[in-house]
Amino acid sequence: MAEVNQELLRMSETLRVLEDEGQITRLISSYGPAVDSGQSEVAAAIWTEDGVYDTNAKVMRGRAEIAGMVEGSLHQQLIAGGVAHVLGVPHIRINGHRAVATCYSRVFRRGEGGFEVWRVAANRWELVRTEEGWRAAYRTTRLLDGSADARELLGRFGED
Amino acid sequence: MAEVNQELLRMSETLRVLEDEGQITRLISSYGPAVDSGQSEVAAAIWTEDGVYDTNAKVMRGRAEIAGMVEGSLHQQLIAGGVAHVLGVPHIRINGHRAVATCYSRVFRRGEGGFEVWRVAANRWELVRTEEGWRAAYRTTRLLDGSADARELLGRFGED
Amino acid sequence: MAEVNQELLRMSETLRVLEDEGQITRLISSYGPAVDSGQSEVAAAIWTEDGVYDTNAKVMRGRAEIAGMVEGSLHQQLIAGGVAHVLGVPHIRINGHRAVATCYSRVFRRGEGGFEVWRVAANRWELVRTEEGWRAAYRTTRLLDGSADARELLGRFGED
Repeated sequence: MAEVNQELLRMSETLRVLEDEGQITRLISSYGPAVDSGQSEVAAAIWTEDGVYDTNAKVMRGRAEIAGMVEGSLHQQLIAGGVAHVLGVPHIRINGHRAVATCYSRVFRRGEGGFEVWRVAANRWELVRTEEGWRAAYRTTRLLDGSADARELLGRFGED
Repeated sequence: MAEVNQELLRMSETLRVLEDEGQITRLISSYGPAVDSGQSEVAAAIWTEDGVYDTNAKVMRGRAEIAGMVEGSLHQQLIAGGVAHVLGVPHIRINGHRAVATCYSRVFRRGEGGFEVWRVAANRWELVRTEEGWRAAYRTTRLLDGSADARELLGRFGED
Repeated sequence: MAEVNQELLRMSETLRVLEDEGQITRLISSYGPAVDSGQSEVAAAIWTEDGVYDTNAKVMRGRAEIAGMVEGSLHQQLIAGGVAHVLGVPHIRINGHRAVATCYSRVFRRGEGGFEVWRVAANRWELVRTEEGWRAAYRTTRLLDGSADARELLGRFGED
């Protein structure tokens, strides 16, 4: 009986990690569908209430600012013209109630002559486990334009 | 003993969902390799016998029509020139013996001056659990060209 | 008790496969961040000591040659200009202590007029379970330029 309990405990812990990874993948993969369909509140709820979205263009603090970006004229013009915010396979590291996910993002846009690759960026998601499930506390996105900060961000994929 | 059984049951259910998600990801990630290598029967078997593949260009009903598309001259020309049908990370929702997976697809083509992004689309896979495993009952693909139906499709990612 | 043990065994085996798939996905998704941040040793350690990276351009044998490619002038120029080596969702088949993962890779580069799709390729990872975890024994990458070997590689996604 003691052996069974020990094995159950080990399995339960392994299962918890796999569940966490699945939930984090689901969270990150919801970003594109949320913003490309203009669901600003759904997109903002990927973050914690005071979560931060730190991009080359600006730093958005809290859900209201993130929702405001989705509702803004730049983003609405992108949607009207045809846009896909594609987040790639996340490299996930879980450490208790915190996690880091590193992935690439690409924004494809419908242009005059067809589809084009508008932006390619490195992403670091710092996530926390909340009562509502995993949420982003801080997401940093940096264009892969040769600048040092994007390379440094990618280089930290193995760190918590 | 009752407690152990209860924990076993909970773990077994969680494990079932994770297995389902893994099988659905495997199914969807087999589409590109199947069609880009011209294996029409393998590609068609991703769907149920009477499964539907609903695209901007046409609606294919049943495995024979889907296999016919892969064997057709347009697709064969794509393969001969160099093509990649890349399906992105699926956002999966499982509801018993049914599931919905939402993801982006991109078709890259080798052109005169190098590789180009030929198509970028939103995908909704409506899947069913069969005796052979998960299969697509209905897949809808819509180009992200600014039209309303692609946005609506993406906006339903959180619905069963 | 016998029934509980049997169910535990079944669950334990299922869990092992899911853990393996998660570890293989993590390994493959670390390739981009490792090479795009110039961490040559980290990238090389994705392979076994005598692992092979077989590309259109050359065949690299062993970790030293793979690290040398990352440290080489061509790759360093790519990093300096802005580059993303994006590996897609892997289709994974596990067979005991061996596994095969098939996926697409794309290299996006920052050019004069913005980002461009530089390379699109088919990848077959032949992996082995080692004491350090899963490692690549042989990775084959072939450009999807219409040549037969890329199509053949993709066509083998369902084989061990």
